[in-house]
Amino acid sequence: MTVFSERIQNGELGLEKVGETVRLLGWVQRRRDHGGLIFVDLRDRSGIVQVVFDPERMGAGFTVAESLRSEFVVSIQGQVIARPEGMINPNLVTGKIEIVAYSLEVLNGAKTPPYYLVDQVDVDETVRLKYRYLDLRRPEMQSVFKIRHRVTQIMRNFFDSQDFYEIETPMLNKSTPEGARDYLVPSRVHPGEFYALPQSPQLYKQLLMVGGMEKYFQIARCFRDEDLRADRQPEFTQLDVEMSFVEVEDILPMMEKLMVKIFAEAVGKEVSIPFPRLTYKEAMDRYGSDKPDTRFGMELIDVGDLVGKSGFKVFANVVAGGGSVKCICAKGCAGMPRREIDDLAKFVSTYRAKGLAWIVMAEEGIKSPIAKFFTEEEMAALIDLTRAETGDILFFVADTYAVVSDALGHLRLELAKRLGLIEEGVLQFLWVTEFPLLEYDDEQKRHIAIHHPFTAPMDEDLQLLESEPLKVRAKAYDMVLNGTELGGGSIRIHRREVQEQLFKLLGFSEEEAVAQFGFLMEAFEYGTPPHGGIAFGLDRMIMLLTGKDNIRDVIAFPKTQSASDLMAHAPSPVADKQIKELHIRTNIEEPVADKK
Amino acid sequence: MTVFSERIQNGELGLEKVGETVRLLGWVQRRRDHGGLIFVDLRDRSGIVQVVFDPERMGAGFTVAESLRSEFVVSIQGQVIARPEGMINPNLVTGKIEIVAYSLEVLNGAKTPPYYLVDQVDVDETVRLKYRYLDLRRPEMQSVFKIRHRVTQIMRNFFDSQDFYEIETPMLNKSTPEGARDYLVPSRVHPGEFYALPQSPQLYKQLLMVGGMEKYFQIARCFRDEDLRADRQPEFTQLDVEMSFVEVEDILPMMEKLMVKIFAEAVGKEVSIPFPRLTYKEAMDRYGSDKPDTRFGMELIDVGDLVGKSGFKVFANVVAGGGSVKCICAKGCAGMPRREIDDLAKFVSTYRAKGLAWIVMAEEGIKSPIAKFFTEEEMAALIDLTRAETGDILFFVADTYAVVSDALGHLRLELAKRLGLIEEGVLQFLWVTEFPLLEYDDEQKRHIAIHHPFTAPMDEDLQLLESEPLKVRAKAYDMVLNGTELGGGSIRIHRREVQEQLFKLLGFSEEEAVAQFGFLMEAFEYGTPPHGGIAFGLDRMIMLLTGKDNIRDVIAFPKTQSASDLMAHAPSPVADKQIKELHIRTNIEEPVADKK
Repeated sequence: MTVFSERIQNGELGLEKVGETVRLLGWVQRRRDHGGLIFVDLRDRSGIVQVVFDPERMGAGFTVAESLRSEFVVSIQGQVIARPEGMINPNLVTGKIEIVAYSLEVLNGAKTPPYYLVDQVDVDETVRLKYRYLDLRRPEMQSVFKIRHRVTQIMRNFFDSQDFYEIETPMLNKSTPEGARDYLVPSRVHPGEFYALPQSPQLYKQLLMVGGMEKYFQIARCFRDEDLRADRQPEFTQLDVEMSFVEVEDILPMMEKLMVKIFAEAVGKEVSIPFPRLTYKEAMDRYGSDKPDTRFGMELIDVGDLVGKSGFKVFANVVAGGGSVKCICAKGCAGMPRREIDDLAKFVSTYRAKGLAWIVMAEEGIKSPIAKFFTEEEMAALIDLTRAETGDILFFVADTYAVVSDALGHLRLELAKRLGLIEEGVLQFLWVTEFPLLEYDDEQKRHIAIHHPFTAPMDEDLQLLESEPLKVRAKAYDMVLNGTELGGGSIRIHRREVQEQLFKLLGFSEEEAVAQFGFLMEAFEYGTPPHGGIAFGLDRMIMLLTGKDNIRDVIAFPKTQSASDLMAHAPSPVADKQIKELHIRTNIEEPVADKK
Repeated sequence: MTVFSERIQNGELGLEKVGETVRLLGWVQRRRDHGGLIFVDLRDRSGIVQVVFDPERMGAGFTVAESLRSEFVVSIQGQVIARPEGMINPNLVTGKIEIVAYSLEVLNGAKTPPYYLVDQVDVDETVRLKYRYLDLRRPEMQSVFKIRHRVTQIMRNFFDSQDFYEIETPMLNKSTPEGARDYLVPSRVHPGEFYALPQSPQLYKQLLMVGGMEKYFQIARCFRDEDLRADRQPEFTQLDVEMSFVEVEDILPMMEKLMVKIFAEAVGKEVSIPFPRLTYKEAMDRYGSDKPDTRFGMELIDVGDLVGKSGFKVFANVVAGGGSVKCICAKGCAGMPRREIDDLAKFVSTYRAKGLAWIVMAEEGIKSPIAKFFTEEEMAALIDLTRAETGDILFFVADTYAVVSDALGHLRLELAKRLGLIEEGVLQFLWVTEFPLLEYDDEQKRHIAIHHPFTAPMDEDLQLLESEPLKVRAKAYDMVLNGTELGGGSIRIHRREVQEQLFKLLGFSEEEAVAQFGFLMEAFEYGTPPHGGIAFGLDRMIMLLTGKDNIRDVIAFPKTQSASDLMAHAPSPVADKQIKELHIRTNIEEPVADKK
């Protein structure tokens, strides 16, 4: 019997084990000397237990106990005893018992760690990232990776039970121009050529459908060489799903069932299905967002018809010019100081709104810089339309539909945060459907695909593809949870002629389309089934499940915002020989603009 | 109800469904017209079923059936009927029934495929790789990926049940000099610096043990930029395992249990445990190989003591010079033509053997070019030692121990193949243990690690590290199945001073060791538990389970021997802008030696 096999985990220790002799393995979390005894909090993956070293029991071994310091790795044998009534520690799962040690072996010593490894760490994140191997020992980090493991197991068992195959797609791909910036890998065998790391397995999963695999999933690593925001990493993980012979109505309910399982089994939370659905248009109209947080109301109200005919020229002109005037009603905020209102006006200006108009429904009557422009009837109609009551404020933005949506959508979220309108623990799932297929990119002066270029148009809009492409809706859908996009997908194009038409709309010449995606279009000619799928951001899902607001806390070895691994020191210079073999030279004399 | 949800898989169709109306979705495998009817073999992922189109039942829809050709994608509604006695097709699972169609929809057409998609394909592999999306439709390919999915599910459920966490380690790593050639990824943010794609998650899994994760596994993609042999791919998949507080005796039995599960649940084969164990020395002595195929005998016999004292100078000189003389006994091969013996001599010369001596035990007496050098007593002793009988041949090689082992080890395998000694379907698992820690590399003029530089020496050999490093055995082990290495691992070094000593033995200066592996050695100082693990090559395991002898048949989208994806055309040239952003230039004017 080895030490490992006779070992018991701390988490298994309880009153029912009293009297037993046990072998424990773990780390010294903390040592205290008291009344001639040594008390050690022993930590393993499952929890913490108190171990007592008594010189009378330990004999000569007591000097070993005296050498113990934080983070020493030890093997302990001892007896489980019940703690006396007054000594019970309700903060520990094992707080009703302790271990009286009779033997101790130090398996490895430890220098004093750079910071104390407890849950409420107060240390700069760069230190935590440099000593990631220590930071991972903290119980809250251990808990994250336990949940992350559990979630991927649930996903795999779910898809396995539905007859999906997990199939690995390649990491050394071809670089394609659509989408974000690729990470490139120079080829040694083919001078001057490069592989690209995948931004997603999109093309390969579609080719698996062409290949008759019918039901595919993969928990896949993906890469984007972008400037990193707080919630992005150069490499991230995606639950990737694709099915043949399906319609939107086959995919959505299946994914709802998956969410029910994940939330119940990983964190014990109930999710009710079916999820509400909003079309993209409804979501934008009512919430100013394609990923609305519906845990609270305060919807956007269109007052364009009403104010367009009013004497308030600023509003009337916007409406006349085809723009939008909308407002939100902040309940019970009439007492908001002028300073805070000005602050909100500054807030919406970051979303390109040129101003923020307001009407305060004070006890003593309406207070507003714009009230004077409205007749009494107009004001009454406005109050009626917005259902504003005494004690509320109405906030107005007038601009293009896009700016109004963006500014009021964000103002709505900001106010909810400031006013504490969001109830903790509530899960508001929903689907957003019928996204536009295309948008016009002013910078590139061309249409770009909102989802991706392989998304199928809705059948009823097909005839608009040539004439009014921006009006064409896609068979695309996003799953939203509490205002965060958890995942998205679509039914794909499965006919060559439609795919060709789409590339043309995106500004590809025929040669470009063939050079980049010729193999996919050729594949479509050999009996491609109708197919569709979805992908979920795993890291973000784990953040939501564990309540972390930093993506680096749910990845074992994350990179910083400048894409560095502070622990392993990657990236790093490499030997000249390595570079030479790849038929490249570095170019580091050049001015460097984007180094952070 | 959607088409997808009311669909039934072909594989579910049997006599018990007779009379039912079913919806089928799939591909036209083959169409035959006979007696005014159209017969279609309809293929889906689960199998093939025969569908009959009768103009009387189909009415106007019969013209659609007339348009059907191979690989058309169709949706069919029809009735299950039992086939008449004489029409039963025993080669089909569904051969007792057929479907009489009453409705047919063509979901997509198909051009004539470049080859007929059946199991016995007779087409160049480059064509299969170019049209990989078609090749995957062949039932035997579908079966491979079904088994591959099943195997990874079994692995994951096994480790989950043993309380392991699957934890993802990064793909954008630091390049390290030990091991094979790295694939490099130029950094955009850090000019002149590179990431490396992982050759294995070795360092990160050890750091997870430092981080208190205790039990880790991952099915991980790994990369090696090597010249590709038949069974290598630039990217491959590995089952990677690491545990804390373990000894060899904890790991080996656990992995045996995993094999029992995989073979039973994925392919219904029984594996008996525990596996036999051979030390490296025993394996080399008896089989001339560190991954012996023990499905047959024909072990190597050391005749050095006997022939060293003989009058045969060639053998005696080798023995006197510290070399080895060994033989194998090929039972019943006395009738082997001289031409074939010469052929075997040529065979062993490819393993650097300078000659192949032989003694034929013919009915009419001993025939051998070397017999005359031995006395009658010596010959009798030789026959006694080798247990050679009338009808056998003895084959001798005299050289260094390494050359003798290699040449006779391969000759043994070659003879077994030629003589048909290997019984099909037998599973001979074994462990090879106590590998040497180091070997001397004549080219680099330094010691290199046989397993990797993080492998722990055996405790009893630690005192030899300075004086006789080549005699030090490692806590390393390989799992071998039928002469193929399935996986290997070791107990790791977990103390800085031992790791430093090892790097020194490998010829690292202190600065080099710190520059490359400083973070690991620093981690060892903060309370690193004893730990060890193992890794299995998943692709090779799937090859053994599915009986494929080409690694490209078990990877969905493999690369060729020149590391190309013939379907997606990767690698490929990329835009100048992309290269420029990475602060590199290509260097393609240079002479290119290794382009294939």
